[in-house]
Amino acid sequence: MKEYCFGIDVGGTTVKMGLFKTDGQLVDKWEIPTRTEDGGKAILPDIAAYALAKLVEKNISRDEVAGIGIGVPGPINADGVVPHTANLGWGYKEVTKELSELTGVICRGGNDANVAALGEMWKGAAAGHKNGVMVTLGTGVGGGIIIDGQIIVGVNGAGGEIGHIHVDDTIPGLCGCGNQGCLEQVASANGIVRLARWMRETDPKETVLEPESMTAKDIWDAVKDGDAFACGVAERFGKYMGTALANIASTVDPEVFVIGGGMSKAGPVVLDYIKKYYVKYTYKACRDAEFVLATLGNDAGIFGSAKLVL
Amino acid sequence: MKEYCFGIDVGGTTVKMGLFKTDGQLVDKWEIPTRTEDGGKAILPDIAAYALAKLVEKNISRDEVAGIGIGVPGPINADGVVPHTANLGWGYKEVTKELSELTGVICRGGNDANVAALGEMWKGAAAGHKNGVMVTLGTGVGGGIIIDGQIIVGVNGAGGEIGHIHVDDTIPGLCGCGNQGCLEQVASANGIVRLARWMRETDPKETVLEPESMTAKDIWDAVKDGDAFACGVAERFGKYMGTALANIASTVDPEVFVIGGGMSKAGPVVLDYIKKYYVKYTYKACRDAEFVLATLGNDAGIFGSAKLVL
Repeated sequence: MKEYCFGIDVGGTTVKMGLFKTDGQLVDKWEIPTRTEDGGKAILPDIAAYALAKLVEKNISRDEVAGIGIGVPGPINADGVVPHTANLGWGYKEVTKELSELTGVICRGGNDANVAALGEMWKGAAAGHKNGVMVTLGTGVGGGIIIDGQIIVGVNGAGGEIGHIHVDDTIPGLCGCGNQGCLEQVASANGIVRLARWMRETDPKETVLEPESMTAKDIWDAVKDGDAFACGVAERFGKYMGTALANIASTVDPEVFVIGGGMSKAGPVVLDYIKKYYVKYTYKACRDAEFVLATLGNDAGIFGSAKLVL
Repeated sequence: MKEYCFGIDVGGTTVKMGLFKTDGQLVDKWEIPTRTEDGGKAILPDIAAYALAKLVEKNISRDEVAGIGIGVPGPINADGVVPHTANLGWGYKEVTKELSELTGVICRGGNDANVAALGEMWKGAAAGHKNGVMVTLGTGVGGGIIIDGQIIVGVNGAGGEIGHIHVDDTIPGLCGCGNQGCLEQVASANGIVRLARWMRETDPKETVLEPESMTAKDIWDAVKDGDAFACGVAERFGKYMGTALANIASTVDPEVFVIGGGMSKAGPVVLDYIKKYYVKYTYKACRDAEFVLATLGNDAGIFGSAKLVL
């Protein structure tokens, strides 16, 4: 009887690991450092060693393990192969095949933003739904699309690359992806600061914000205090996000949008500004989609990775 | 041995019917009038009668029929229920249940734009692909998203409602859906004429086009003749379409885009203008998506409907 599984979330500095019951109960979680030196060659052996050690510690036999799911920061195809992952040091790597050989257990892989979405759909903010879209507003803007409980991976692993939806020709500068006018340029934690500085050039309203040193948190705090300039920034952010999510709705028509990442800690006010424009621009049939804040935080990745093997 | 199936495409004036072998070979096709009077109560009995008569004519027993697929002009949920279909006269109707009771054969239903997409993916322009997006540029702009060979229906049946992607705040007038700024307002056969008239207000370039009487065909003919004003309209059309499809790529990352509908008869030039802007605005990983013209024409619906039951 296979009662257990592992969910692994590989980041650039730490690997988060979780041991789960197959019903989704988290038995134990821990972190290990991500050793990126020498082309990241120790990463998978480290994961295997700590997973097998945990089984010994808990007196669980390998035959009781249904599988190991692993989320990685970059594209990974349906066969568990990553072409290249800059921030782990990996070149071409057959991730799930190698990890399976190291552990003797079936492995499946996914992109980190996609597995976080799957985690929130399984045990987080959108539990009980089978069709949802998660947007992660962190350093960048990530995303994951879940339809009928399955991740939309995409032919090039670019399914759910919501941050690179084109929203405005006039945004100054280039996105990290090389394009100009991406959602990420104005809606990530860095992006909303960039947006505020750009708007400041032509909007002289009095404000508590210091253009040089302000953070995304400062902007949302000022919004909550009714600062007129900050509220203008939030409106523009809401319009970009609301339009992008409305257009996603006209494509995949989900039940629920989950908003996560560092910026979601500003709370329901973030949803309010997004929903205002979502409702304006979305196709009529999609107007009642739910908007919720993510609840699993940094654990979304281990939950979603575990779900990959169930 | 179930060797046959039917594909039915219900339109506002005619019902197209096809008898297929389950390998996709079209055995026979024909049309019957759509009798919309009295709440459209004769439509399904007519379809059943003509399907059963065809079996008698071809000396095929009902046991040899794998099923009947039916495409309808409007939303239809996973249980084959339409809430309301204005142009057929139907209110709430359990389409597949009723048709199954009338014929004694399993039935499945889909939206007409979605089943057309499935048809082109199965036996048309995108045969051999499993992940594709079809856009129909006709009186309106319709669409269908196929992932892993399955239609993305959406929670409200609004999956693939590509025509209602918001593209521009400044488009004059309202879309038929009630919103302002939809792709359909500038990219359908009517839409490109509307776009040309709008651009004519501020663009005095000499042109062969007559603003009052021009058609979509006139515009594309003028583009092919190098008419400067018409080429400007095609650029703007290409930018709207290319951006919308780039944003769909960042969501579902398909292998192929199929462009169909009356306006696609203008030929590869339509693809050229779309691709120019698609490549500019899409996420780098998605740049090599194929663009093809639909090949099944009015038969896409019967092919796709047949595929629903296979």
